[in-house]
Amino acid sequence: MSQNILDINTVELDEANNCVIIIDQTRLPSKTELINLKTAEEIWEAIYLLKVRGAPAIGVAAALGLYVRAGEIYKELTAEKSKQCNKLQDNDNVAVYQSFFDRVIKEKEYLNSSRPTAVNLSWALNRMEKVLKEWYEESRPVVNFENEKDIIEKCISKLNAEAKAIQKEDIDTCRKLGEYGLTLLKKGDGILTHCNAGQLATSKYGTATAPIYLGHEKGYDFKVFCDETRPLLQGARLTAYELQSAGVDVTLICDNMSAMVMRNGWVNAVFVGCDRVAANGDVANKIGTSVVATVAKRFNVPFYVCAPTSTIDLNTPTGNDIKIEERPQSEVTDMWYKERMAPENVKVFNPAFDVTDNEYVTAIITEYGIARAPYTDSLKEILDRKHSCQM
Amino acid sequence: MSQNILDINTVELDEANNCVIIIDQTRLPSKTELINLKTAEEIWEAIYLLKVRGAPAIGVAAALGLYVRAGEIYKELTAEKSKQCNKLQDNDNVAVYQSFFDRVIKEKEYLNSSRPTAVNLSWALNRMEKVLKEWYEESRPVVNFENEKDIIEKCISKLNAEAKAIQKEDIDTCRKLGEYGLTLLKKGDGILTHCNAGQLATSKYGTATAPIYLGHEKGYDFKVFCDETRPLLQGARLTAYELQSAGVDVTLICDNMSAMVMRNGWVNAVFVGCDRVAANGDVANKIGTSVVATVAKRFNVPFYVCAPTSTIDLNTPTGNDIKIEERPQSEVTDMWYKERMAPENVKVFNPAFDVTDNEYVTAIITEYGIARAPYTDSLKEILDRKHSCQM
Repeated sequence: MSQNILDINTVELDEANNCVIIIDQTRLPSKTELINLKTAEEIWEAIYLLKVRGAPAIGVAAALGLYVRAGEIYKELTAEKSKQCNKLQDNDNVAVYQSFFDRVIKEKEYLNSSRPTAVNLSWALNRMEKVLKEWYEESRPVVNFENEKDIIEKCISKLNAEAKAIQKEDIDTCRKLGEYGLTLLKKGDGILTHCNAGQLATSKYGTATAPIYLGHEKGYDFKVFCDETRPLLQGARLTAYELQSAGVDVTLICDNMSAMVMRNGWVNAVFVGCDRVAANGDVANKIGTSVVATVAKRFNVPFYVCAPTSTIDLNTPTGNDIKIEERPQSEVTDMWYKERMAPENVKVFNPAFDVTDNEYVTAIITEYGIARAPYTDSLKEILDRKHSCQM
Repeated sequence: MSQNILDINTVELDEANNCVIIIDQTRLPSKTELINLKTAEEIWEAIYLLKVRGAPAIGVAAALGLYVRAGEIYKELTAEKSKQCNKLQDNDNVAVYQSFFDRVIKEKEYLNSSRPTAVNLSWALNRMEKVLKEWYEESRPVVNFENEKDIIEKCISKLNAEAKAIQKEDIDTCRKLGEYGLTLLKKGDGILTHCNAGQLATSKYGTATAPIYLGHEKGYDFKVFCDETRPLLQGARLTAYELQSAGVDVTLICDNMSAMVMRNGWVNAVFVGCDRVAANGDVANKIGTSVVATVAKRFNVPFYVCAPTSTIDLNTPTGNDIKIEERPQSEVTDMWYKERMAPENVKVFNPAFDVTDNEYVTAIITEYGIARAPYTDSLKEILDRKHSCQM
């Protein structure tokens, strides 16, 4: 393998060309294709079609994407304005200001509709929206024909800073998650992971893989089992690929082999990522996670969820309140790429996520420490700690 | 769908052409291809490559196959003999008799090596060998130049009768399994099944599907969830196909969705087939079965194993004594057909079966009644009942 996939950024801002560059993850591991996202449709589709996926990476891509969109929207509005110049009065200029904010907010809502389960998407977009709205409130009383351009450019620059902050925090968060996670492991441990909560799901390190990468650097010599993760095979295509690129000892298994490897005594801990943690510690993550948790409990293997605090959603009381995305049947019936493998017209149930009940979660690892049951208390404490650190 | 796959026999003897005809199950559901097996290599490969699969069907195919081979071997030996006639003495004729038995036994051993986990293969071949050896013992003292042909032809006819008996018993057994299994179900039940223990795995009705088919005839209106069963997708390709052909309400899911459908309360019982039952009730079946059993126990869903008594192996004390077949890595890394979906050179663990510990088995359904824990006693009782019925 000539290239190391970890040397390429999962999501990157190209400021010169005002676009977001992502690795098209649907083509990995066979092809490493970088694609540029500039239109709202391109960003929405990249998220919906899982070209960029993983809760933290989706948040970063959406935030950077909204910044790109703000710049493009402003360009479009000024172009429209100059066309209409002849017919319009000068005081119409201020309409660009209002249109700008309206359209950016509208596109924020549109991007937010691309995937429902991961809370990071709306969390990141809400941060961007907050910046936008605060600046709108501040500038509205003073905007006029002369300062309009500066005010909008200042807004775009604030969005740039916020999106970059989200990306930087993602990297710091993953690193800290990794450090906390590593305290739960010892040299030579067998680790099972499901789906891809790796670097490809974040800006760097990954969440569930962060302790693996940090331990690997220190010579911990882990043996990692990687669920292939049907239907879209993120484990086979992405996790096995990135761990292998990093030189980690990784063995690919089908999702239905977890009981076998645990029964053989090969697994000391399970590490998974997550898309949303409810206030009671119920965890929504890639479909199949709750199967692994159930099997781990049977074999007394600790089951750890790696959750940046941005995925903790105290407004969602329990897992039953999390909307589970259902995806196209063809993901199950048609092959990764092309060949059909189920009869025509067969009914299919294809939930993209499931809920792991809190009693099956040994601990939730965040960048502000490790939460254990009862989660209603410990998650609140973690968020209080975060809040006091930020003050 | 113009054809009903259930109208075609899974395994059939073509006496006119002295060959075994099977549906090539690796091509379903896209293509229904019948293939003729005549050479030992063809039969071995059909079993090894899962063109014919499912413990009972493998047993029937091997038994019919050995009968076909006996006829072919005799033809070959007489042809060789007539070539050598000029150089040999008449009393050399009797050497055909010995060679015939030697070669048939040798091919029996060869066919028996095609798959290790299912006990039915060796069980069926051992029944054939017993017929062979008994007739050998009986005829050896009296064989001579004049009666040799009659004695060998008589032997072949005995093998024909035994192979057909095995096939007929398979049909009767599945029907009885279905009747016992149906007593555990009620109208409108949700049923989850794993892999294919359907008609395609037997001569008729299937094992795990027998209660479904019998109930369907009586208007039980089951809702069946069918695990796709990675890596070879027997659930998606075969079970969903045959249940759909029969008009049963079937929904295809990935293996990692079982906890989700059970958590939703959609499953009242799990029915699976099996490849070998140890004396203590541990069950070897298609990889993933023990995951389903673990999940079912968590949700208090009864987990039923449908086991013809031919799969009960009292000589195997526990599941740990069952040899688990490992299969090629490419089954996991390459697509069903062709496209690769995991990085090159990744390590893969690909066991074809797993062991479900007896405490996870609610009951074992046989053609002689339903066994419950403690299985060491109940399985023995079942076999005693079988024995006394046969006397």
